[in-house]
Amino acid sequence: MNLILITPDELDATGRAQLADNRAEHIRKVLRAEPGKTLRIGLLDGPVGTGTVEKISEDSVTLACEFEDDTPPRPAVDLLLAMPRPKVLKRLWAQFAALGVGRIFITNAEKVERYYFDTHILEPGFYNARFIEGLQQARDTRLPEVAIVKNLKPFLENELFSDIEEKLLADPSGERSLFQCLENVDAMSSSRFQPLEGRILLGVGPEGGWTPYELEMFKAHGFEVFGMGPRILRTDTACIALLSQLSLCSSLK
Amino acid sequence: MNLILITPDELDATGRAQLADNRAEHIRKVLRAEPGKTLRIGLLDGPVGTGTVEKISEDSVTLACEFEDDTPPRPAVDLLLAMPRPKVLKRLWAQFAALGVGRIFITNAEKVERYYFDTHILEPGFYNARFIEGLQQARDTRLPEVAIVKNLKPFLENELFSDIEEKLLADPSGERSLFQCLENVDAMSSSRFQPLEGRILLGVGPEGGWTPYELEMFKAHGFEVFGMGPRILRTDTACIALLSQLSLCSSLK
Repeated sequence: MNLILITPDELDATGRAQLADNRAEHIRKVLRAEPGKTLRIGLLDGPVGTGTVEKISEDSVTLACEFEDDTPPRPAVDLLLAMPRPKVLKRLWAQFAALGVGRIFITNAEKVERYYFDTHILEPGFYNARFIEGLQQARDTRLPEVAIVKNLKPFLENELFSDIEEKLLADPSGERSLFQCLENVDAMSSSRFQPLEGRILLGVGPEGGWTPYELEMFKAHGFEVFGMGPRILRTDTACIALLSQLSLCSSLK
Repeated sequence: MNLILITPDELDATGRAQLADNRAEHIRKVLRAEPGKTLRIGLLDGPVGTGTVEKISEDSVTLACEFEDDTPPRPAVDLLLAMPRPKVLKRLWAQFAALGVGRIFITNAEKVERYYFDTHILEPGFYNARFIEGLQQARDTRLPEVAIVKNLKPFLENELFSDIEEKLLADPSGERSLFQCLENVDAMSSSRFQPLEGRILLGVGPEGGWTPYELEMFKAHGFEVFGMGPRILRTDTACIALLSQLSLCSSLK
Protein backbone atom coordinates (compact mmCIF):
# COMPACT_ATOMS: atom_id res chain seq x y z
CA MET A 1 0.00 0.00 0.00
CA ASN A 2 2.05 2.91 -1.31
CA LEU A 3 -0.84 5.36 -1.15
CA ILE A 4 -3.93 5.34 1.12
CA LEU A 5 -7.04 5.81 -1.03
CA ILE A 6 -10.00 7.61 0.55
CA THR A 7 -13.46 7.84 -0.95
CA PRO A 8 -15.27 11.22 -1.06
CA ASP A 9 -18.01 9.99 1.33
CA GLU A 10 -15.38 9.18 3.97
CA LEU A 11 -14.39 12.85 4.27
CA ASP A 12 -16.27 14.94 6.81
CA ALA A 13 -16.89 18.69 6.48
CA THR A 14 -13.53 19.50 8.11
CA GLY A 15 -11.57 17.32 5.67
CA ARG A 16 -11.04 14.51 8.17
CA ALA A 17 -11.43 10.80 7.46
CA GLN A 18 -11.74 8.06 10.05
CA LEU A 19 -10.51 4.72 8.73
CA ALA A 20 -11.31 1.42 10.43
CA ASP A 21 -10.47 -1.27 7.90
CA ASN A 22 -7.28 -2.74 6.42
CA ARG A 23 -6.00 0.78 5.73
CA ALA A 24 -6.03 1.55 9.47
CA GLU A 25 -4.27 -1.73 10.12
CA HIS A 26 -1.64 -0.92 7.47
CA ILE A 27 -1.04 2.55 8.97
CA ARG A 28 -0.64 1.05 12.47
CA LYS A 29 1.23 -2.17 11.79
CA VAL A 30 3.24 -1.65 8.60
CA LEU A 31 3.85 2.10 8.57
CA ARG A 32 3.94 2.19 12.42
CA ALA A 33 2.64 5.75 12.21
CA GLU A 34 2.33 7.97 15.30
CA PRO A 35 0.11 11.06 15.60
CA GLY A 36 1.66 13.90 13.58
CA LYS A 37 3.08 11.68 10.86
CA THR A 38 2.07 12.60 7.29
CA LEU A 39 1.11 9.90 4.83
CA ARG A 40 0.71 9.85 1.06
CA ILE A 41 -3.02 9.72 0.34
CA GLY A 42 -5.35 10.00 -2.65
CA LEU A 43 -9.00 10.75 -3.20
CA LEU A 44 -10.66 8.06 -5.28
CA ASP A 45 -10.91 9.43 -8.85
CA GLY A 46 -9.53 12.71 -7.51
CA PRO A 47 -6.23 14.34 -6.59
CA VAL A 48 -3.41 12.94 -4.47
CA GLY A 49 -2.38 14.68 -1.25
CA THR A 50 -1.14 14.19 2.30
CA GLY A 51 -2.92 12.89 5.35
CA THR A 52 -1.72 13.85 8.83
CA VAL A 53 -2.37 11.24 11.49
CA GLU A 54 -4.42 12.88 14.28
CA LYS A 55 -5.60 9.93 16.35
CA ILE A 56 -4.74 6.26 16.45
CA SER A 57 -6.71 3.74 18.44
CA GLU A 58 -6.80 -0.03 18.33
CA ASP A 59 -9.51 -0.09 15.72
CA SER A 60 -9.33 3.20 13.86
CA VAL A 61 -7.10 5.96 12.52
CA THR A 62 -8.16 9.59 11.97
CA LEU A 63 -6.43 11.50 9.16
CA ALA A 64 -6.57 15.26 8.46
CA CYS A 65 -6.52 15.32 4.66
CA GLU A 66 -5.18 17.89 2.24
CA PHE A 67 -5.37 17.37 -1.48
CA GLU A 68 -3.62 18.93 -4.45
CA ASP A 69 -5.64 21.01 -6.90
CA ASP A 70 -5.37 18.77 -9.94
CA THR A 71 -6.66 15.27 -10.49
CA PRO A 72 -4.16 13.09 -12.40
CA PRO A 73 -5.28 12.29 -15.94
CA ARG A 74 -7.05 9.01 -16.64
CA PRO A 75 -4.57 6.50 -18.17
CA ALA A 76 -4.65 6.87 -21.97
CA VAL A 77 -5.06 3.18 -22.76
CA ASP A 78 -8.36 1.29 -22.87
CA LEU A 79 -8.53 -2.49 -23.05
CA LEU A 80 -10.94 -4.66 -25.02
CA LEU A 81 -10.49 -8.16 -23.63
CA ALA A 82 -12.27 -11.33 -24.67
CA MET A 83 -13.55 -12.81 -21.41
CA PRO A 84 -10.80 -15.07 -20.00
CA ARG A 85 -11.43 -17.95 -17.62
CA PRO A 86 -12.74 -16.36 -14.41
CA LYS A 87 -9.76 -17.70 -12.42
CA VAL A 88 -7.42 -15.77 -14.73
CA LEU A 89 -9.43 -12.54 -14.76
CA LYS A 90 -9.73 -12.62 -10.98
CA ARG A 91 -5.96 -12.19 -10.67
CA LEU A 92 -5.82 -9.55 -13.41
CA TRP A 93 -8.13 -6.84 -12.01
CA ALA A 94 -5.60 -5.44 -9.53
CA GLN A 95 -2.84 -5.55 -12.11
CA PHE A 96 -4.90 -3.59 -14.64
CA ALA A 97 -5.36 -0.80 -12.10
CA ALA A 98 -1.67 -0.93 -11.14
CA LEU A 99 -0.46 -0.76 -14.73
CA GLY A 100 -2.96 1.98 -15.60
CA VAL A 101 -6.01 1.32 -17.77
CA GLY A 102 -8.81 3.82 -18.37
CA ARG A 103 -11.68 1.61 -19.47
CA ILE A 104 -11.98 -2.16 -19.71
CA PHE A 105 -14.44 -3.76 -22.12
CA ILE A 106 -14.90 -7.45 -21.31
CA THR A 107 -16.41 -8.99 -24.43
CA ASN A 108 -17.78 -12.22 -25.71
CA ALA A 109 -16.05 -14.00 -28.62
CA GLU A 110 -16.72 -17.21 -30.51
CA LYS A 111 -14.06 -19.05 -28.53
CA VAL A 112 -15.27 -17.79 -25.13
CA GLU A 113 -17.37 -20.28 -23.17
CA ARG A 114 -20.76 -18.73 -22.31
CA TYR A 115 -20.60 -19.90 -18.70
CA TYR A 116 -17.49 -17.77 -18.10
CA PHE A 117 -19.87 -14.82 -17.66
CA ASP A 118 -21.72 -16.47 -14.75
CA THR A 119 -19.25 -15.36 -12.14
CA HIS A 120 -19.21 -12.98 -9.21
CA ILE A 121 -15.89 -11.54 -10.33
CA LEU A 122 -17.78 -9.51 -12.98
CA GLU A 123 -19.70 -7.71 -10.24
CA PRO A 124 -18.63 -4.10 -9.53
CA GLY A 125 -18.28 -4.83 -5.82
CA PHE A 126 -15.70 -7.47 -6.63
CA TYR A 127 -13.59 -5.72 -9.25
CA ASN A 128 -13.66 -2.29 -7.66
CA ALA A 129 -12.13 -3.73 -4.48
CA ARG A 130 -9.35 -5.26 -6.57
CA PHE A 131 -8.88 -2.02 -8.50
CA ILE A 132 -8.44 -0.09 -5.27
CA GLU A 133 -5.81 -2.62 -4.20
CA GLY A 134 -3.93 -2.05 -7.49
CA LEU A 135 -4.27 1.75 -7.31
CA GLN A 136 -2.93 1.79 -3.73
CA GLN A 137 0.02 -0.30 -4.92
CA ALA A 138 0.80 1.93 -7.92
CA ARG A 139 -0.05 5.30 -6.28
CA ASP A 140 -2.83 6.16 -8.71
CA THR A 141 -6.35 7.38 -7.95
CA ARG A 142 -8.16 6.79 -11.24
CA LEU A 143 -10.58 3.87 -10.96
CA PRO A 144 -10.89 1.97 -14.26
CA GLU A 145 -14.39 1.79 -15.74
CA VAL A 146 -15.70 -1.61 -16.75
CA ALA A 147 -18.31 -2.56 -19.34
CA ILE A 148 -19.44 -6.14 -19.96
CA VAL A 149 -20.14 -6.60 -23.68
CA LYS A 150 -22.00 -9.81 -24.30
CA ASN A 151 -22.51 -9.08 -27.98
CA LEU A 152 -19.43 -7.86 -29.80
CA LYS A 153 -20.84 -7.02 -33.23
CA PRO A 154 -23.38 -4.34 -32.30
CA PHE A 155 -20.90 -2.94 -29.83
CA LEU A 156 -18.30 -2.39 -32.56
CA GLU A 157 -20.93 -1.09 -34.96
CA ASN A 158 -22.25 1.54 -32.62
CA GLU A 159 -18.83 3.21 -32.65
CA LEU A 160 -18.66 4.09 -29.03
CA PHE A 161 -15.01 5.02 -29.52
CA SER A 162 -15.12 8.66 -30.62
CA ASP A 163 -12.25 9.55 -28.26
CA ILE A 164 -10.03 6.70 -29.49
CA GLU A 165 -7.20 7.70 -31.84
CA GLU A 166 -5.65 4.29 -32.40
CA LYS A 167 -7.32 0.86 -32.31
CA LEU A 168 -4.91 -2.05 -32.06
CA LEU A 169 -5.67 -5.77 -31.99
CA ALA A 170 -3.19 -8.42 -30.83
CA ASP A 171 -3.32 -11.53 -33.01
CA PRO A 172 -0.74 -14.09 -34.22
CA SER A 173 -1.77 -13.22 -37.82
CA GLY A 174 -0.45 -9.66 -37.42
CA GLU A 175 2.60 -9.04 -39.60
CA ARG A 176 3.59 -5.73 -38.06
CA SER A 177 4.76 -5.32 -34.48
CA LEU A 178 3.05 -3.14 -31.92
CA PHE A 179 5.73 -0.56 -32.45
CA GLN A 180 5.57 -0.53 -36.20
CA CYS A 181 1.88 0.29 -35.76
CA LEU A 182 2.62 3.25 -33.51
CA GLU A 183 5.76 4.51 -35.20
CA ASN A 184 5.63 7.72 -37.17
CA VAL A 185 1.90 8.12 -37.01
CA ASP A 186 2.75 11.65 -38.11
CA ALA A 187 5.53 11.43 -40.69
CA MET A 188 6.23 15.18 -40.40
CA SER A 189 7.32 14.73 -36.83
CA SER A 190 11.00 14.33 -36.15
CA SER A 191 10.31 12.03 -33.24
CA ARG A 192 10.17 8.31 -33.71
CA PHE A 193 6.94 7.87 -31.82
CA GLN A 194 4.42 10.62 -32.26
CA PRO A 195 2.78 11.25 -28.88
CA LEU A 196 -0.91 10.46 -29.36
CA GLU A 197 -3.41 13.15 -28.46
CA GLY A 198 -6.29 10.72 -28.15
CA ARG A 199 -6.65 7.35 -26.54
CA ILE A 200 -5.40 3.90 -27.55
CA LEU A 201 -7.76 0.92 -27.53
CA LEU A 202 -5.92 -2.38 -27.18
CA GLY A 203 -7.76 -5.56 -28.12
CA VAL A 204 -6.71 -8.96 -26.70
CA GLY A 205 -8.40 -12.18 -27.80
CA PRO A 206 -9.44 -15.40 -26.04
CA GLU A 207 -7.07 -18.33 -25.38
CA GLY A 208 -8.08 -19.95 -28.69
CA GLY A 209 -7.67 -16.69 -30.63
CA TRP A 210 -10.13 -14.63 -32.65
CA THR A 211 -11.90 -16.38 -35.55
CA PRO A 212 -11.31 -15.17 -39.15
CA TYR A 213 -14.82 -13.66 -39.07
CA GLU A 214 -14.05 -11.71 -35.91
CA LEU A 215 -10.71 -10.53 -37.29
CA GLU A 216 -12.42 -9.18 -40.42
CA MET A 217 -15.02 -7.44 -38.27
CA PHE A 218 -12.33 -5.73 -36.19
CA LYS A 219 -10.44 -4.65 -39.31
CA ALA A 220 -13.65 -3.28 -40.84
CA HIS A 221 -14.00 -1.14 -37.73
CA GLY A 222 -10.55 0.39 -38.01
CA PHE A 223 -8.49 -1.96 -35.85
CA GLU A 224 -4.89 -2.52 -36.90
CA VAL A 225 -3.72 -6.09 -36.24
CA PHE A 226 -0.26 -6.62 -34.78
CA GLY A 227 1.72 -9.72 -33.85
CA MET A 228 3.60 -10.38 -30.63
CA GLY A 229 6.46 -12.44 -32.08
CA PRO A 230 6.93 -16.22 -32.00
CA ARG A 231 6.19 -16.69 -28.30
CA ILE A 232 2.59 -17.48 -27.43
CA LEU A 233 1.78 -16.06 -24.01
CA ARG A 234 -1.03 -16.87 -21.59
CA THR A 235 -3.76 -14.21 -21.57
CA ASP A 236 -2.69 -12.82 -18.21
CA THR A 237 0.99 -12.60 -19.17
CA ALA A 238 0.09 -11.12 -22.56
CA CYS A 239 -2.09 -8.39 -21.02
CA ILE A 240 0.65 -7.30 -18.62
CA ALA A 241 3.29 -7.48 -21.37
CA LEU A 242 1.25 -5.38 -23.81
CA LEU A 243 0.20 -2.73 -21.29
CA SER A 244 3.84 -2.34 -20.21
CA GLN A 245 5.02 -2.02 -23.78
CA LEU A 246 2.36 0.60 -24.50
CA SER A 247 3.25 2.61 -21.40
CA LEU A 248 6.81 2.54 -22.64
CA CYS A 249 5.74 3.87 -26.01
CA SER A 250 4.32 6.97 -24.45
CA SER A 251 7.69 7.54 -22.75
CA LEU A 252 9.61 7.39 -26.06
CA LYS A 253 9.70 10.74 -27.73
CA MET B 1 0.38 -26.54 -24.68
CA ASN B 2 1.47 -25.09 -28.03
CA LEU B 3 4.47 -27.40 -28.37
CA ILE B 4 5.03 -30.87 -26.90
CA LEU B 5 8.43 -30.96 -25.17
CA ILE B 6 10.30 -34.26 -25.15
CA THR B 7 13.42 -34.99 -23.11
CA PRO B 8 16.41 -36.72 -24.77
CA ASP B 9 16.03 -39.81 -22.55
CA GLU B 10 12.47 -40.31 -23.80
CA LEU B 11 13.67 -40.92 -27.37
CA ASP B 12 14.50 -44.51 -28.34
CA ALA B 13 17.11 -45.49 -30.96
CA THR B 14 14.56 -45.18 -33.77
CA GLY B 15 13.58 -41.63 -32.76
CA ARG B 16 10.28 -42.65 -31.18
CA ALA B 17 8.91 -41.38 -27.86
CA GLN B 18 6.13 -42.97 -25.87
CA LEU B 19 4.32 -40.43 -23.70
CA ALA B 20 2.05 -41.42 -20.83
CA ASP B 21 1.52 -38.27 -18.79
CA ASN B 22 -0.36 -35.01 -19.23
CA ARG B 23 1.17 -34.61 -22.70
CA ALA B 24 -0.54 -37.81 -23.84
CA GLU B 25 -3.78 -36.59 -22.33
CA HIS B 26 -3.42 -33.25 -24.10
CA ILE B 27 -2.78 -34.97 -27.44
CA ARG B 28 -5.84 -37.20 -26.98
CA LYS B 29 -8.34 -34.87 -25.38
CA VAL B 30 -7.44 -31.34 -26.49
CA LEU B 31 -5.76 -31.89 -29.85
CA ARG B 32 -7.98 -34.97 -30.52
CA ALA B 33 -5.15 -36.38 -32.62
CA GLU B 34 -5.55 -39.56 -34.67
CA PRO B 35 -2.70 -41.77 -35.93
CA GLY B 36 -0.95 -40.00 -38.83
CA LYS B 37 -1.43 -36.50 -37.44
CA THR B 38 1.72 -34.40 -37.10
CA LEU B 39 2.28 -32.26 -34.01
CA ARG B 40 4.66 -29.45 -33.20
CA ILE B 41 7.30 -30.84 -30.84
CA GLY B 42 10.59 -29.75 -29.28
CA LEU B 43 13.56 -31.48 -27.70
CA LEU B 44 14.31 -30.04 -24.27
CA ASP B 45 17.26 -27.65 -24.71
CA GLY B 46 17.43 -28.77 -28.34
CA PRO B 47 15.75 -28.12 -31.68
CA VAL B 48 12.04 -27.97 -32.50
CA GLY B 49 10.51 -30.43 -34.94
CA THR B 50 7.44 -32.50 -35.78
CA GLY B 51 6.06 -35.59 -34.15
CA THR B 52 3.84 -37.97 -36.13
CA VAL B 53 1.29 -39.85 -34.05
CA GLU B 54 1.81 -43.59 -34.57
CA LYS B 55 -0.26 -45.17 -31.83
CA ILE B 56 -2.83 -43.88 -29.38
CA SER B 57 -4.13 -45.95 -26.50
CA GLU B 58 -6.05 -44.98 -23.39
CA ASP B 59 -2.92 -44.34 -21.41
CA SER B 60 -0.18 -43.54 -23.90
CA VAL B 61 0.72 -41.92 -27.22
CA THR B 62 3.67 -42.93 -29.44
CA LEU B 63 5.25 -40.21 -31.58
CA ALA B 64 7.80 -40.64 -34.40
CA CYS B 65 9.97 -37.57 -33.92
CA GLU B 66 11.94 -35.52 -36.43
CA PHE B 67 13.92 -32.50 -35.36
CA GLU B 68 15.40 -29.54 -37.19
CA ASP B 69 19.18 -29.17 -37.36
CA ASP B 70 19.56 -26.03 -35.27
CA THR B 71 18.78 -25.42 -31.62
CA PRO B 72 17.16 -22.00 -31.02
CA PRO B 73 19.46 -19.56 -29.21
CA ARG B 74 19.17 -19.15 -25.45
CA PRO B 75 17.19 -15.98 -24.63
CA ALA B 76 19.64 -13.06 -24.33
CA VAL B 77 18.33 -11.75 -21.01
CA ASP B 78 19.39 -12.99 -17.57
CA LEU B 79 17.55 -12.03 -14.40
CA LEU B 80 18.98 -11.23 -10.98
CA LEU B 81 16.00 -11.27 -8.63
CA ALA B 82 15.94 -10.63 -4.89
CA MET B 83 14.05 -13.60 -3.45
CA PRO B 84 10.34 -12.68 -3.44
CA ARG B 85 7.78 -14.21 -1.11
CA PRO B 86 7.60 -17.90 -2.10
CA LYS B 87 3.91 -17.55 -3.04
CA VAL B 88 4.86 -14.89 -5.60
CA LEU B 89 7.85 -16.74 -7.04
CA LYS B 90 5.80 -19.93 -7.35
CA ARG B 91 3.57 -18.23 -9.90
CA LEU B 92 6.49 -16.60 -11.72
CA TRP B 93 8.57 -19.63 -12.77
CA ALA B 94 6.35 -20.58 -15.70
CA GLN B 95 6.10 -16.97 -16.82
CA PHE B 96 9.88 -16.55 -16.86
CA ALA B 97 10.22 -19.52 -19.20
CA ALA B 98 7.34 -18.26 -21.36
CA LEU B 99 8.77 -14.74 -21.66
CA GLY B 100 12.27 -16.07 -22.31
CA VAL B 101 15.03 -15.83 -19.71
CA GLY B 102 18.45 -17.47 -20.02
CA ARG B 103 19.63 -17.61 -16.41
CA ILE B 104 17.91 -16.68 -13.17
CA PHE B 105 19.92 -15.68 -10.12
CA ILE B 106 17.74 -15.70 -7.00
CA THR B 107 19.61 -13.64 -4.43
CA ASN B 108 19.44 -12.57 -0.86
CA ALA B 109 19.10 -8.86 0.02
CA GLU B 110 18.85 -6.92 3.25
CA LYS B 111 15.08 -6.64 2.91
CA VAL B 112 14.55 -10.31 2.10
CA GLU B 113 13.36 -12.44 5.01
CA ARG B 114 15.76 -15.37 5.57
CA TYR B 115 12.96 -17.90 5.89
CA TYR B 116 11.86 -17.20 2.30
CA PHE B 117 14.66 -19.55 1.24
CA ASP B 118 13.22 -22.50 3.19
CA THR B 119 10.80 -23.50 0.50
CA HIS B 120 10.37 -26.43 -1.86
CA ILE B 121 9.77 -24.06 -4.77
CA LEU B 122 13.56 -23.47 -4.93
CA GLU B 123 14.13 -27.16 -5.68
CA PRO B 124 15.04 -28.01 -9.29
CA GLY B 125 12.27 -30.62 -9.47
CA PHE B 126 9.74 -27.92 -8.70
CA TYR B 127 10.92 -25.08 -10.91
CA ASN B 128 11.92 -27.23 -13.89
CA ALA B 129 8.37 -28.61 -14.07
CA ARG B 130 7.05 -25.03 -14.11
CA PHE B 131 9.62 -24.02 -16.73
CA ILE B 132 8.54 -26.86 -19.00
CA GLU B 133 4.94 -25.68 -18.63
CA GLY B 134 6.01 -22.15 -19.71
CA LEU B 135 8.16 -23.40 -22.59
CA GLN B 136 5.30 -25.56 -23.91
CA GLN B 137 3.06 -22.49 -23.75
CA ALA B 138 5.53 -20.19 -25.55
CA ARG B 139 6.91 -22.80 -28.01
CA ASP B 140 10.47 -22.57 -26.77
CA THR B 141 12.85 -25.40 -25.83
CA ARG B 142 15.55 -23.58 -23.81
CA LEU B 143 15.27 -24.40 -20.13
CA PRO B 144 16.33 -21.45 -17.94
CA GLU B 145 19.23 -22.12 -15.57
CA VAL B 146 18.76 -21.21 -11.90
CA ALA B 147 21.34 -20.32 -9.27
CA ILE B 148 20.44 -19.58 -5.65
CA VAL B 149 22.75 -16.86 -4.33
CA LYS B 150 22.52 -16.58 -0.56
CA ASN B 151 25.34 -14.08 -0.32
CA LEU B 152 25.17 -11.24 -2.81
CA LYS B 153 28.47 -9.46 -2.17
CA PRO B 154 30.96 -12.25 -3.00
CA PHE B 155 28.74 -13.21 -5.92
CA LEU B 156 29.04 -9.74 -7.46
CA GLU B 157 32.74 -9.54 -6.64
CA ASN B 158 33.60 -12.79 -8.35
CA GLU B 159 32.45 -11.27 -11.65
CA LEU B 160 30.71 -14.28 -12.97
CA PHE B 161 29.27 -12.19 -15.76
CA SER B 162 31.96 -12.23 -18.45
CA ASP B 163 29.35 -12.76 -21.18
CA ILE B 164 27.15 -9.88 -19.98
CA GLU B 165 27.34 -6.70 -22.06
CA GLU B 166 24.85 -4.57 -20.13
CA LYS B 167 23.95 -4.72 -16.43
CA LEU B 168 20.75 -2.91 -15.51
CA LEU B 169 19.16 -2.49 -12.09
CA ALA B 170 15.54 -1.43 -11.57
CA ASP B 171 15.18 1.00 -8.65
CA PRO B 172 12.94 4.01 -7.90
CA SER B 173 16.11 6.10 -7.47
CA GLY B 174 17.01 5.65 -11.15
CA GLU B 175 16.76 8.91 -13.07
CA ARG B 176 17.07 7.42 -16.54
CA SER B 177 14.50 5.12 -18.07
CA LEU B 178 15.25 1.58 -19.22
CA PHE B 179 15.31 2.87 -22.76
CA GLN B 180 17.59 5.77 -22.13
CA CYS B 181 20.04 3.21 -20.75
CA LEU B 182 19.90 1.10 -23.89
CA GLU B 183 19.63 3.88 -26.44
CA ASN B 184 22.60 4.68 -28.64
CA VAL B 185 24.99 2.36 -26.91
CA ASP B 186 27.01 2.90 -30.07
CA ALA B 187 26.69 6.54 -31.10
CA MET B 188 28.11 5.81 -34.55
CA SER B 189 25.16 3.65 -35.36
CA SER B 190 22.29 5.26 -37.20
CA SER B 191 19.82 3.05 -35.40
CA ARG B 192 18.16 4.19 -32.23
CA PHE B 193 18.81 0.99 -30.34
CA GLN B 194 22.07 -0.71 -31.06
CA PRO B 195 21.45 -4.45 -31.08
CA LEU B 196 23.56 -5.89 -28.28
CA GLU B 197 26.01 -8.65 -29.14
CA GLY B 198 26.27 -9.86 -25.57
CA ARG B 199 23.74 -10.57 -22.90
CA ILE B 200 21.69 -8.25 -20.68
CA LEU B 201 21.51 -8.83 -16.94
CA LEU B 202 18.39 -7.32 -15.38
CA GLY B 203 18.33 -6.79 -11.62
CA VAL B 204 15.03 -6.54 -9.72
CA GLY B 205 14.93 -5.79 -5.99
CA PRO B 206 12.81 -6.98 -3.07
CA GLU B 207 9.38 -5.52 -2.16
CA GLY B 208 11.03 -3.01 0.20
CA GLY B 209 13.69 -2.04 -2.38
CA TRP B 210 17.49 -2.24 -2.30
CA THR B 211 19.27 -0.47 0.56
CA PRO B 212 21.65 2.47 -0.21
CA TYR B 213 24.56 0.12 0.58
CA GLU B 214 23.32 -2.47 -1.90
CA LEU B 215 22.72 0.18 -4.56
CA GLU B 216 26.30 1.44 -4.22
CA MET B 217 27.59 -2.12 -4.43
CA PHE B 218 25.67 -2.76 -7.66
CA LYS B 219 26.92 0.53 -9.15
CA ALA B 220 30.50 -0.32 -8.19
CA HIS B 221 30.08 -3.54 -10.18
CA GLY B 222 28.97 -1.80 -13.35
CA PHE B 223 25.18 -1.84 -12.95
CA GLU B 224 23.29 1.10 -14.41
CA VAL B 225 20.27 2.06 -12.32
CA PHE B 226 17.02 2.91 -14.11
CA GLY B 227 13.60 3.99 -12.90
CA MET B 228 10.23 2.59 -13.94
CA GLY B 229 8.22 5.80 -13.70
CA PRO B 230 5.82 6.90 -10.98
CA ARG B 231 3.86 3.64 -10.71
CA ILE B 232 5.15 1.17 -8.14
CA LEU B 233 4.43 -2.36 -9.30
CA ARG B 234 4.30 -5.61 -7.39
CA THR B 235 7.41 -7.77 -7.95
CA ASP B 236 5.58 -10.23 -10.17
CA THR B 237 4.01 -7.52 -12.33
CA ALA B 238 7.32 -5.63 -12.50
CA CYS B 239 9.24 -8.72 -13.68
CA ILE B 240 6.78 -9.42 -16.47
CA ALA B 241 6.66 -5.73 -17.43
CA LEU B 242 10.45 -5.38 -17.58
CA LEU B 243 11.07 -8.61 -19.49
CA SER B 244 8.43 -7.59 -22.06
CA GLN B 245 9.95 -4.16 -22.44
CA LEU B 246 13.41 -5.66 -22.93
CA SER B 247 12.18 -8.14 -25.51
CA LEU B 248 10.68 -5.19 -27.33
CA CYS B 249 14.02 -3.38 -27.27
CA SER B 250 15.67 -6.15 -29.19
CA SER B 251 12.94 -5.82 -31.84
CA LEU B 252 13.60 -2.06 -32.28
CA LYS B 253 16.36 -1.45 -34.75
